[in-house]
Amino acid sequence: MIYTYLGPAGTFTEAALLQVPDARTSERIPAANVNAALEKVRSGAADAAMVPIENSVEGGVSTTLDAIATGDALQIVTEALVPITFVLAVRENIDSLEQIRTVSTHGHAWAQCRGWAESNIPQAEFVPASSTAAGAIALLDGESNHDAAICSPLVAQERGLKVLREEIEDYKGAVTRFILVTRPGPIPAPTGIDKSTVILPLAEDRPGALMEILEQFVVRGVNLSRIESRPTGEGMGRYFFSVDVDGHVAQARVADALTGLHRVCPDLRFLGSYPAAAGLTSAVDAHNSDEAFNRAQSWVGGLRERLLG
Amino acid sequence: MIYTYLGPAGTFTEAALLQVPDARTSERIPAANVNAALEKVRSGAADAAMVPIENSVEGGVSTTLDAIATGDALQIVTEALVPITFVLAVRENIDSLEQIRTVSTHGHAWAQCRGWAESNIPQAEFVPASSTAAGAIALLDGESNHDAAICSPLVAQERGLKVLREEIEDYKGAVTRFILVTRPGPIPAPTGIDKSTVILPLAEDRPGALMEILEQFVVRGVNLSRIESRPTGEGMGRYFFSVDVDGHVAQARVADALTGLHRVCPDLRFLGSYPAAAGLTSAVDAHNSDEAFNRAQSWVGGLRERLLG
Amino acid sequence: MIYTYLGPAGTFTEAALLQVPDARTSERIPAANVNAALEKVRSGAADAAMVPIENSVEGGVSTTLDAIATGDALQIVTEALVPITFVLAVRENIDSLEQIRTVSTHGHAWAQCRGWAESNIPQAEFVPASSTAAGAIALLDGESNHDAAICSPLVAQERGLKVLREEIEDYKGAVTRFILVTRPGPIPAPTGIDKSTVILPLAEDRPGALMEILEQFVVRGVNLSRIESRPTGEGMGRYFFSVDVDGHVAQARVADALTGLHRVCPDLRFLGSYPAAAGLTSAVDAHNSDEAFNRAQSWVGGLRERLLG
Amino acid sequence: MIYTYLGPAGTFTEAALLQVPDARTSERIPAANVNAALEKVRSGAADAAMVPIENSVEGGVSTTLDAIATGDALQIVTEALVPITFVLAVRENIDSLEQIRTVSTHGHAWAQCRGWAESNIPQAEFVPASSTAAGAIALLDGESNHDAAICSPLVAQERGLKVLREEIEDYKGAVTRFILVTRPGPIPAPTGIDKSTVILPLAEDRPGALMEILEQFVVRGVNLSRIESRPTGEGMGRYFFSVDVDGHVAQARVADALTGLHRVCPDLRFLGSYPAAAGLTSAVDAHNSDEAFNRAQSWVGGLRERLLG
Repeated sequence: MIYTYLGPAGTFTEAALLQVPDARTSERIPAANVNAALEKVRSGAADAAMVPIENSVEGGVSTTLDAIATGDALQIVTEALVPITFVLAVRENIDSLEQIRTVSTHGHAWAQCRGWAESNIPQAEFVPASSTAAGAIALLDGESNHDAAICSPLVAQERGLKVLREEIEDYKGAVTRFILVTRPGPIPAPTGIDKSTVILPLAEDRPGALMEILEQFVVRGVNLSRIESRPTGEGMGRYFFSVDVDGHVAQARVADALTGLHRVCPDLRFLGSYPAAAGLTSAVDAHNSDEAFNRAQSWVGGLRERLLG
Repeated sequence: MIYTYLGPAGTFTEAALLQVPDARTSERIPAANVNAALEKVRSGAADAAMVPIENSVEGGVSTTLDAIATGDALQIVTEALVPITFVLAVRENIDSLEQIRTVSTHGHAWAQCRGWAESNIPQAEFVPASSTAAGAIALLDGESNHDAAICSPLVAQERGLKVLREEIEDYKGAVTRFILVTRPGPIPAPTGIDKSTVILPLAEDRPGALMEILEQFVVRGVNLSRIESRPTGEGMGRYFFSVDVDGHVAQARVADALTGLHRVCPDLRFLGSYPAAAGLTSAVDAHNSDEAFNRAQSWVGGLRERLLG
Repeated sequence: MIYTYLGPAGTFTEAALLQVPDARTSERIPAANVNAALEKVRSGAADAAMVPIENSVEGGVSTTLDAIATGDALQIVTEALVPITFVLAVRENIDSLEQIRTVSTHGHAWAQCRGWAESNIPQAEFVPASSTAAGAIALLDGESNHDAAICSPLVAQERGLKVLREEIEDYKGAVTRFILVTRPGPIPAPTGIDKSTVILPLAEDRPGALMEILEQFVVRGVNLSRIESRPTGEGMGRYFFSVDVDGHVAQARVADALTGLHRVCPDLRFLGSYPAAAGLTSAVDAHNSDEAFNRAQSWVGGLRERLLG
Repeated sequence: MIYTYLGPAGTFTEAALLQVPDARTSERIPAANVNAALEKVRSGAADAAMVPIENSVEGGVSTTLDAIATGDALQIVTEALVPITFVLAVRENIDSLEQIRTVSTHGHAWAQCRGWAESNIPQAEFVPASSTAAGAIALLDGESNHDAAICSPLVAQERGLKVLREEIEDYKGAVTRFILVTRPGPIPAPTGIDKSTVILPLAEDRPGALMEILEQFVVRGVNLSRIESRPTGEGMGRYFFSVDVDGHVAQARVADALTGLHRVCPDLRFLGSYPAAAGLTSAVDAHNSDEAFNRAQSWVGGLRERLLG
């Protein structure tokens, strides 16, 4: 297996990839951006890509949501959760917060520490970096034109950076969810605690259009654990929905909901069923169990056996 | 084939039965009431029973609705529509409306001519008869203690009764619908213009319970052409619904709706798919066609072929 | 107050009327049928009419349902429940069931004792009577041409009839519900345990039309305790719905649902809010309480106070 | 009036602000980021802030969506659409695409031109800038360590930059929508073509919870033109929805939907009704017009006038 991931090395994405059992001993190729990582998979240059999909504070990662919703088909085979905590690393000659005039990090990391920064280093100007790791490593270079960097504890530790403050994130307990994406292939067997992801273009802009889609889930008791609207790029007001549901396509209620959705939304895209990293919150009613579906289908099957002609 | 029907001979029910191709040349046994007719079928004494189910003015025939909803399973194999028009037959010695002191007929016929009677023979007292034919034929007996009878044109003609007025029904164009009921057996092949009948007990008395049932039809675009609530007999507020839908169990949208209903309402009873006597009014959207269902199922089937384990 | 009711005297309807506090000491005029009783109210000949609306075994009383749904407006001001139990009264010279060749009663009573009759007096022919009381009282006449009558215990007792069997009804515990109907006028103040009745014509025959009506109740958490479809008389497949809901028009959720229904169904007819005779089974969520409605309206009212122009 | 906006000067946001009639002649204070701009309004340092809310390609602007959904209440009073088109500006000594080794711009702009960049300047490394204007203006500095910048035509023109390519955006016709935000105050009078914005926290994670919210819109025929889910920050799977609907709180159907939403979702936040910059696509049925609402309310009002006690 050849893995790729949103690089560079040392970011939270690599930490997510290292949760995959055989990833630590496999080839791991950092990619410059999410699209590049997915392109390596689509072209066959890599077998799987780990990319961020959602942050518990910042929300969905638009680039990933869009990239897997269009273009050649891809499949999500697993997900990984990584707690997001940041440290403030500084150049060797910096000893106090007051000395910091510039702080560099990736825009997403900046968004998650902005409150702390405004309270603790209000004088510091933000210098965008292409990644948290890049901003941090640059501190070691003579070329660096910034005094501090916000980065993961891992990078700071591995590169031996000077850390002035830890846990500087505004929301404690923030988590980023990553997905491991492959070309379409075998679907992991159900574990009992699975989720499925599906892309649903909304054909029409009128009252009730979204309802008709959601009803396909509701009549089968399928819980939506995530719903994101994304523009299709075809003009303001044209959306698709990226949806996670509790359950696996091997389960009748999910398969039946997908069948119904295919009719009202034929351009939908199934992105996979895979183990849920954090458990599920929704219970399944008896009448939405596989047994109930099987009994119902047997019953209707019996009726149809009596058909003449 | 041995046929039975709600007798006596000469009523609208026999007229309905005579619409069945081979009924005119088959044995036809009148039954004293709807339950007796259905019992002959259940016991094997007859193969099929013609009974009234609905009148366009009076509404559902409760006895029939209840009798086919409970007890040993039965099946509807065809339906027949009979225009309902009444004549006023009188004893030979009656020559004008003013002379009529008593008028006899079945309660249902009386209900359909009451307005005419109140306007034209306000002095006449209503004498209930066990059937329109019985009330009419009794005019020929010396024993008859009534002056006039409201009956079908057929009986008047066949028995040579004196008719004082024709078309005395209050609502012109009234029609009664009859069903031909057999023991469960082969289901007639779809003709393209079919309906299906199903009995749906309502398990719970709460906001939304009926909605959950109806949603199973709506998400598949299945039109309800008739819905009747009937008491289960288990106490005030306990109902079942008797429902006709446009379409045939051989069609995917109907089969799929039945499958969904079986889950939320496992005690449902399927009473048959059969040709609609009067056409259908509802159109079927492309996304509820058999082709759309087949494509959807093939698509999900393809997904499930990729399942591991 | 002048009361009328579905006569003759001695039937269950008079028993229902006698539950009304001042009815025992007021004038009580029996009417020949439901329409005649309601006509007395519409014309001013009586102030209120007690008529049957529903039986826990037989279902809705079509004549009443239709009569209050059309014609000059009427109002339901109270309801009464009467347990339905029947006795078998016989002529003086009858001593055993075997001697009975004919049994008379009203068709509705016959329907409720038919099972008992078929088991216990299978040889007896049914002779329809215009009411249970009429069939019973006729036993006292020399003219009577039947041996037995099925009637209420009350009539048997008051007229001193010979009773051969008691509690011969097929379904023990059957109850008939009666309504007291007036011309439109003051609406009884809410008691906390009330119901409301409304007539809803269904404008269109298509999937979802009934749903749109029911959704108006569901989004306000209003429970339907009864729903009956009735033909409009304008042709097969044209229905109106007669609906009882838990709650009073004085309560915000009911008033709001009626407001919504008036928009989608402008020809609806409100038939009254009145105390429920048998309690209610549905609970009201906090977010459907009057307080929740008041808070919501105050909030929106506050927004609209900020409107310019 | 003192205006603020997402700076620096010369970006698309200032272009949006200049669409506001009196903005060109008023004080305009650039803010370092969206939160800073909104904070100036909340604190009274400015009267109104223009900030981006949505791009037709990139989707919702998370920072803005979140910032107006929480904290002290704000109000949207107008919106502005700005076509997004980019030019490639270069240092004076650059004459061809091949010479470009580094290109700087804001991450959002980079996302919108990435396809062009990968095809036309694949050798160029992306250098994140804090804004498109900052990246462009830096080309004029000797200090600049990048060869090219992706920026708005306006900045290039105003600063006299050398432009090598125009219209380099991947999706032609992209538009960004901006909102003008004030402290809560008067609501602009309806123009007939208005929209309203509301924030709806989703209390529960179960099948149907989102449906219950959407039904409040659907039963009043209110069209959703935008729906975005955003994390509440309280943990994965906890969302609120940011919703735009067609219509104005001065219109009955919108006011009624808001009233219903306040009950099921008491923590909702109304962000304003204001003229729609680009017209509306949804028609309003007669039964959802103000006239229909008025008639319905008058009718129910008439019923309630008859209430006793």
